[in-house]
Amino acid sequence: MKCVGIVGGGQLARMLAIAGIPLNLRFTFLDPSGDACATPLGTYLKGAYDDSEYLSYIAKHADVVTYEFENVPNSSVQYLSSHVPVFPSPDALAIARDRLHEKSLFTQLAIPTVPYKAVNSLDDLKDAVEKIGFPSILKTRVFGYDGKGQRILHGPEDIDPAWNVYGGVPMVLERLVDFDRELSCIAVRARNGKTAFYPPSQNVHQKGILRIAWSRPKDEMTLQIQEYTLKVLDKLDYVGVLAIEFFQVGNMLLANEIAPRVHNSGHWTIEGAQTSQFENHLRAILGLPLGTTESVGFTAMINCIGQVPDMEAVMSVPGAHFHWYGKKLLADRKVGHITIRSDDQDKLEILVNQLLQSMIDCG
Amino acid sequence: MKCVGIVGGGQLARMLAIAGIPLNLRFTFLDPSGDACATPLGTYLKGAYDDSEYLSYIAKHADVVTYEFENVPNSSVQYLSSHVPVFPSPDALAIARDRLHEKSLFTQLAIPTVPYKAVNSLDDLKDAVEKIGFPSILKTRVFGYDGKGQRILHGPEDIDPAWNVYGGVPMVLERLVDFDRELSCIAVRARNGKTAFYPPSQNVHQKGILRIAWSRPKDEMTLQIQEYTLKVLDKLDYVGVLAIEFFQVGNMLLANEIAPRVHNSGHWTIEGAQTSQFENHLRAILGLPLGTTESVGFTAMINCIGQVPDMEAVMSVPGAHFHWYGKKLLADRKVGHITIRSDDQDKLEILVNQLLQSMIDCG
Repeated sequence: MKCVGIVGGGQLARMLAIAGIPLNLRFTFLDPSGDACATPLGTYLKGAYDDSEYLSYIAKHADVVTYEFENVPNSSVQYLSSHVPVFPSPDALAIARDRLHEKSLFTQLAIPTVPYKAVNSLDDLKDAVEKIGFPSILKTRVFGYDGKGQRILHGPEDIDPAWNVYGGVPMVLERLVDFDRELSCIAVRARNGKTAFYPPSQNVHQKGILRIAWSRPKDEMTLQIQEYTLKVLDKLDYVGVLAIEFFQVGNMLLANEIAPRVHNSGHWTIEGAQTSQFENHLRAILGLPLGTTESVGFTAMINCIGQVPDMEAVMSVPGAHFHWYGKKLLADRKVGHITIRSDDQDKLEILVNQLLQSMIDCG
Repeated sequence: MKCVGIVGGGQLARMLAIAGIPLNLRFTFLDPSGDACATPLGTYLKGAYDDSEYLSYIAKHADVVTYEFENVPNSSVQYLSSHVPVFPSPDALAIARDRLHEKSLFTQLAIPTVPYKAVNSLDDLKDAVEKIGFPSILKTRVFGYDGKGQRILHGPEDIDPAWNVYGGVPMVLERLVDFDRELSCIAVRARNGKTAFYPPSQNVHQKGILRIAWSRPKDEMTLQIQEYTLKVLDKLDYVGVLAIEFFQVGNMLLANEIAPRVHNSGHWTIEGAQTSQFENHLRAILGLPLGTTESVGFTAMINCIGQVPDMEAVMSVPGAHFHWYGKKLLADRKVGHITIRSDDQDKLEILVNQLLQSMIDCG
């Protein structure tokens, strides 16, 4: 029985464990939080991400290490990778976790992205605004997620307040894009370099948080998305699941950001694909053959944010599956998701509307 | 978070827990075995099935109780059901666990079954043989599984030896049927009486142990199988998943036995149906709406008996999924299963042969 060490013990780690238990894997989670929801499914090391005693424990006991989020301290990743295989690699992580590095990578690989500029000082910011114009969006290079660590600049009057909030950490200013659709590519690359791509996800956000992801088998942008993603995977010599978010403007795709891990917009793969992103991430990092990524019908995933919908109402909708994370309910916190699948795209839209209505009715 | 108490902590309990964790359920298992494989997924009460202290713990802490096998002591079921909802009900269990009672039920409901006769003495046995003839099969009324607790009688010379092995416990003699196919029906009935049926499973046994189960969407016997199964479900006022095994002889179905629980021939539903038998059993006993039981393509399930196939070889087969139970390897013990799914029945057969070959090659 192999042991997978996971830095982080939230819902992504939890779903990795649920996928891995039938593969005869056991799990060790490092997480400082008191209610890390993956932890009943393995050995729980309750400590900081740079706790040297726990890192040493993982280095000794794990056969392979991965993470459920990208902001793992560099020193921890370096230490672990000097003792045990760590995937994605420290180098891949260093690029994918940093908005400036990932945008530079897109540029280097001739993958279109939004105009951007590094910002390290107020002068930089003023200079960047001059080049990029308004509206634009100022983002911290690291530690941003779910719309956190970013602020929109509509005009010159927003420059100083934005600087006052975020100034002092490395940042990047990007043009705010009026896109037609947001798509993401969930891909997986094995230790031997083989790659597989899920059909694109089409994502709908509310208040900066992913609300709905639709599987889009045969989407017209599929080939382009996969070509760009393949370039990134190969360049990083990546191992595991990786997600790239794209903005679509007309017929053009603009790469937005990389997530070097299983991704919320790929949760639909649990029911909606032959092999889930979680199982494929584990297969990849363990050096096992990848599972097929074909979609099974059409699927939508709806995030439950801050509250529990009525389980009975959800389960009354044909094809609906409930995924509860076992976390405390807090506003704006992702506490679960619902997947709904159908053999027919139009029927799926009707079911999703039915489901959303039932969630509003009892919310 | 609701707590489900399960009497038994083997692979069926384990797969119930894996299905139930995303539904925000927690589990308590009662099992005397030192390596009960479900137990890392919940609270483990290591004790006998009639341990009064543990039964009282379950009665206090569980919101609902179920079992993963039918041979739970009557006194335990009675005690639990006087304190907490227990499904299937003690009455349903009392019938379904006893080969004589289940055969009498089939007769009462006009469901064809094999000729049978109760045997409580050597005289009974001789009398039964006279009526039923050879070959016939002598079975213990309770505690039989995987071909255990039964013995074939080919001629008069087998009567005394069979009696010497099994005599003293209540038994039943049945005609040994030369059947064309063995089919089983996995069905689920909700607390409110609603029922749902999975497509039939076609089962292949080796040495009395299920080796392969094929999902058979649109099988010609489907309606007949479901009509018979519905009679049993309604008569028993059954709640939860129930399986009935049938022999097919020509165009006739003979009901063979009832399993009042999730069943090995339904494991393919994890990947091969919209909702697995495990999730639907939990939905049923918790009073939640049933999930749709439609099949997703064509699926086969191969049991791993006594040994682990090479994981890499298995995972190289497109559409193959590995389910390891985490049990010690013992000869004739079910230690895992592999599911394989395809959109095409012919393609599935090729893949299954490929998989079986790879298992033989490394076995």
